[in-house]
Amino acid sequence: MCELLGMSANVPTDICFSFTGLVQRGGGTGPHKDGWGITFYEGLGCRTFKDPMPSIDSPIARLVQDYPIKSCAVVSHIRQANRGRVALENTHPFTRELWGRNWTFAHNGQLNGYRQLETGIYRPIGQTDSEYAFCWLLARLNDRYPKTPRHWPSVFRYIETLARELQKKGIFNMLLSDGCFVMGYCSTELHWITRRAPFGKATLLDRDVEIDFQQQTTPDDVVTVIATQPLTGNETWHQVEPGRGVLFRLGEREF
Amino acid sequence: MCELLGMSANVPTDICFSFTGLVQRGGGTGPHKDGWGITFYEGLGCRTFKDPMPSIDSPIARLVQDYPIKSCAVVSHIRQANRGRVALENTHPFTRELWGRNWTFAHNGQLNGYRQLETGIYRPIGQTDSEYAFCWLLARLNDRYPKTPRHWPSVFRYIETLARELQKKGIFNMLLSDGCFVMGYCSTELHWITRRAPFGKATLLDRDVEIDFQQQTTPDDVVTVIATQPLTGNETWHQVEPGRGVLFRLGEREF
Repeated sequence: MCELLGMSANVPTDICFSFTGLVQRGGGTGPHKDGWGITFYEGLGCRTFKDPMPSIDSPIARLVQDYPIKSCAVVSHIRQANRGRVALENTHPFTRELWGRNWTFAHNGQLNGYRQLETGIYRPIGQTDSEYAFCWLLARLNDRYPKTPRHWPSVFRYIETLARELQKKGIFNMLLSDGCFVMGYCSTELHWITRRAPFGKATLLDRDVEIDFQQQTTPDDVVTVIATQPLTGNETWHQVEPGRGVLFRLGEREF
Repeated sequence: MCELLGMSANVPTDICFSFTGLVQRGGGTGPHKDGWGITFYEGLGCRTFKDPMPSIDSPIARLVQDYPIKSCAVVSHIRQANRGRVALENTHPFTRELWGRNWTFAHNGQLNGYRQLETGIYRPIGQTDSEYAFCWLLARLNDRYPKTPRHWPSVFRYIETLARELQKKGIFNMLLSDGCFVMGYCSTELHWITRRAPFGKATLLDRDVEIDFQQQTTPDDVVTVIATQPLTGNETWHQVEPGRGVLFRLGEREF
């Protein structure tokens, strides 16, 4: 299995603290040593850092922890391989274009019978069930909305129904973003927390690091973090109900 | 204008030396301060490091210079913006999927009338003439070869004719790779050099750095570097004739 980490914020915010917690699980406190990746959106553009090496040993992961890249939408993943060998082409997140936007996807779980999924114009490059599922999702969206849709929450409601289809094939926890929205879907486990004023302190579960968010924020900041398992011990994380999606935009929950 | 840098090699080789020369021109010895990017292929996968900041000041560019990522196919670019503002979505190289492969593209030059280019299923995300041209190229390839082609040199010969079409709209020097082949097309300027045994020493033009390739290679290594302008002063670079493409695979020239 794998672990997911996402962020949605109303001001460009760095994810160094949460990512530091996550990478410990990539070969340190957790078994997810088969690669890691993180995608940061900046306007319409995005950039991904990824490595098939364990995150705990990766000089690139160290850069991402130390160099605060600020973004309003982030998708990250650490991998414990099941479908598809340990290789760069099988390392999440995956990004593809739809409606002139970059869509980024990461998956936790395992699917059966995924090779029968019709992926249309989106051909998988690697061998993972995850990339197949992502290509199928985009192909269905492209079929349903040949032109750029206008009402976004209903698009994401449709994605929730597609995710439920995929869940029938196994375990399908996912994160998906177009740079504006960050959506999570829970098949078995997914948690989120929204931080806003008054900000407090938080302590990572996986490493002896404490952060005082008040030192790093302004009173108007709203920052939501989504993760497979809670990353901090002294805060209350919300659990997403299995079979449900959650949608965030600028840190606020849309559904 | 911009500068291009590409590599094709028969063994995974790092590009730290050449990239160190290139980044000096990104705000140091050259005016190409509007972003930079580099894509490394590893098997079917690829990863891109990019930044809209000047390469000379970029902590990420420093990582790429210091951390030897080894690859058989690399495409890199430093940008001096003309079409499209300085932003991540306008920062080269651009990567899109065709025939289940990652295709990566970088452009030097400037095109007129590029918004009339029909890009089919490949919708541009940013505002550059370059990304439009790339999307048009992929759409033409997808039209001509709806199924994965088998004879690759003829595909690249077709790309050469498409590049000549684009050249009619302005200046179109480019690099293009699918991870196996690295193609250059020269509209006004493009140079290349193939290094093989007996390896010698080389000195960067843009920074006081010398390398002894013999220390870093085995006798069977074949490494070709393609660049807008020669990067070293004591070696003979070949100039590509305007209106012509060059194609390399595993360091060797195919045409």
